[in-house]
Amino acid sequence: MVTKKPDATRRSERSRRAILAATRELIVELGYAKVSIDAIAARAGVGKQTIYRWWPAKGAVVFDSVLELSADPSGAVAALPDTGDLEADLRQVLRATVAEFADPAFEAPIRALNTEIANDPDLAALYRERLAAPVDEAKKDRLRSAQRAGQLDPGADLDLLLEVLYAPLYQRWLLRTGPLTESYADALVATVLKAFGP
Amino acid sequence: MVTKKPDATRRSERSRRAILAATRELIVELGYAKVSIDAIAARAGVGKQTIYRWWPAKGAVVFDSVLELSADPSGAVAALPDTGDLEADLRQVLRATVAEFADPAFEAPIRALNTEIANDPDLAALYRERLAAPVDEAKKDRLRSAQRAGQLDPGADLDLLLEVLYAPLYQRWLLRTGPLTESYADALVATVLKAFGP
Repeated sequence: MVTKKPDATRRSERSRRAILAATRELIVELGYAKVSIDAIAARAGVGKQTIYRWWPAKGAVVFDSVLELSADPSGAVAALPDTGDLEADLRQVLRATVAEFADPAFEAPIRALNTEIANDPDLAALYRERLAAPVDEAKKDRLRSAQRAGQLDPGADLDLLLEVLYAPLYQRWLLRTGPLTESYADALVATVLKAFGP
Repeated sequence: MVTKKPDATRRSERSRRAILAATRELIVELGYAKVSIDAIAARAGVGKQTIYRWWPAKGAVVFDSVLELSADPSGAVAALPDTGDLEADLRQVLRATVAEFADPAFEAPIRALNTEIANDPDLAALYRERLAAPVDEAKKDRLRSAQRAGQLDPGADLDLLLEVLYAPLYQRWLLRTGPLTESYADALVATVLKAFGP
């Protein structure tokens, strides 16, 4: 049985989602530096006081607007596919990441957040705790399954493996040092399987 | 025979170096956002017009102040050690990078520049051309020597190899996602040798 939410709660949720969507749109259109609470309020059709009721500052709204991109509506982190074919599963996941980074609506807010994180150790710790760590744990579940199946070295350092798999892609994207393509994603998967294979 | 520089040239060079040193110091002390041309001029003991004669804006001074950290006085990029022992040579180089990133006087200006680059494709291209590409070329010279010696796969993609070697370290540093230690440097070297070995 679904409990019916009172109207006020529904209105709040609608406002909250409108604010987060407006934040992401404005970052894409203006760049992080030029986004203001005033502009977010105007775009979302709410008063500034509504934003300040939930978030203390612009950085906090941006943080939640990015968090919303990476979690399903329940806030859970998606599990990785496990078809039994580790190489195919990792290729699928890494190619999906490449596709996301090619989409300005997705990558621009994350770029804004990353440059904030680089200059704010507290925000870095919060990001790590609330987003990066749960996402990494879901990935490591898939890697542990591969270890049990004898497809990875049972003693492999899975944190190092994830860094070797994702950091080159992250660096290419952040610093625009090379093209992000499916073949690049596949090359990273092949490198990791060779380095951390049984 | 050394040609004696006229006094004016020597004074200019002294001012230029004072400005770049002041820029790095102020970034460490204040953070990039709070550094101003006024503050740089005051710290360096020069007039603002002296700075604007050589650089159009703050970003350009910061760029050159970081460039100066990475080149010897002639502007040349240092070659990598080549003792014949690839693993030892790469460990030495990567451990040196770890040590540099532990030094606030070194890492803070580079952090400031990296966050500018992440949000400015033109600056990213300039950085790539003037600093990253020559440094990578010097590293690839060492890797080609290892390929000739049969210590690396002769068909290895050397750009990919360098990304796998350095990007995890870069990401840990920029996002503060883990400790930068000598053992971490050694683990990255071991990973790369396993993945790109003969």
